Amino acid sequence: MEPDVAPARSAADRRVDVLAKLESDVDLWVASASANGDAHLVPLSFLWDGARLTIAVSASSVTGRNLTRQRWARVALGPTRDVVIIEGPVEVIPVGDDDELAAAHAAKAGFDARETSGRWIFLRVTPRTIQAWREVNELDGRHVMIDGEWLTGP
Amino acid sequence: MEPDVAPARSAADRRVDVLAKLESDVDLWVASASANGDAHLVPLSFLWDGARLTIAVSASSVTGRNLTRQRWARVALGPTRDVVIIEGPVEVIPVGDDDELAAAHAAKAGFDARETSGRWIFLRVTPRTIQAWREVNELDGRHVMIDGEWLTGP
Repeated sequence: MEPDVAPARSAADRRVDVLAKLESDVDLWVASASANGDAHLVPLSFLWDGARLTIAVSASSVTGRNLTRQRWARVALGPTRDVVIIEGPVEVIPVGDDDELAAAHAAKAGFDARETSGRWIFLRVTPRTIQAWREVNELDGRHVMIDGEWLTGP
Repeated sequence: MEPDVAPARSAADRRVDVLAKLESDVDLWVASASANGDAHLVPLSFLWDGARLTIAVSASSVTGRNLTRQRWARVALGPTRDVVIIEGPVEVIPVGDDDELAAAHAAKAGFDARETSGRWIFLRVTPRTIQAWREVNELDGRHVMIDGEWLTGP
């Protein structure tokens, strides 16, 4: 281990750090794929409601089309030396169907998806797996959630 | 525009900033897709040689398999409010075939792909399109390279 690398965090510490990051971060990276196997990647604002994260996209955007098809997302919070990677199923919610969600998203993301032009959708991801690591010494034990269950108590 | 947002950068300034970021950043986000249309996303160290970027992966990793198939990459440098997104074709170079590349990659990435276990490959991406933006006011004009050509002089 290099001398300037912090000791690996415990599972409990990683859980605390992941939840704090989900509360405080504004954007994440969203990967998606077409049915033909073409990859896409964009940064998007998100809302964390304590259990699920929600992004808003145009239904006709690459990410909107891909995730409506896949119904499964892999997203990442950065920076690359403080990584949180989340995978889980995607619910597709037409903007206009849930004003409470739209208002909460607008307050966090800084724009109101109800006021955009064209048809927009919310994509709501419920984490099934969460990985969290900073440096190479944290690659072991990077899974903090598997099958929707935290690997450590709160 | 919000008062604390900097004015949009010119195309020339973005080109300078993109090249500086490619020189100084250590990691980027690599999106990839399987033939079945499943998306993957990981952070990886990279080497920029002035014209191409190189990452090293295990040939059997998800990213290794996906990009060997796709032969096209979409990668992103962050943070999410200082984005550079690069797309381009991928060359697959077995580790061991190019010691100069391996040495340069090791010096930048902090590990030597020749010393890893299993079969590793270098994936070398030549940019065809580059987008660069910080805030919403920079979304117009975010393309700084199209079809391998910078949209502005040096």
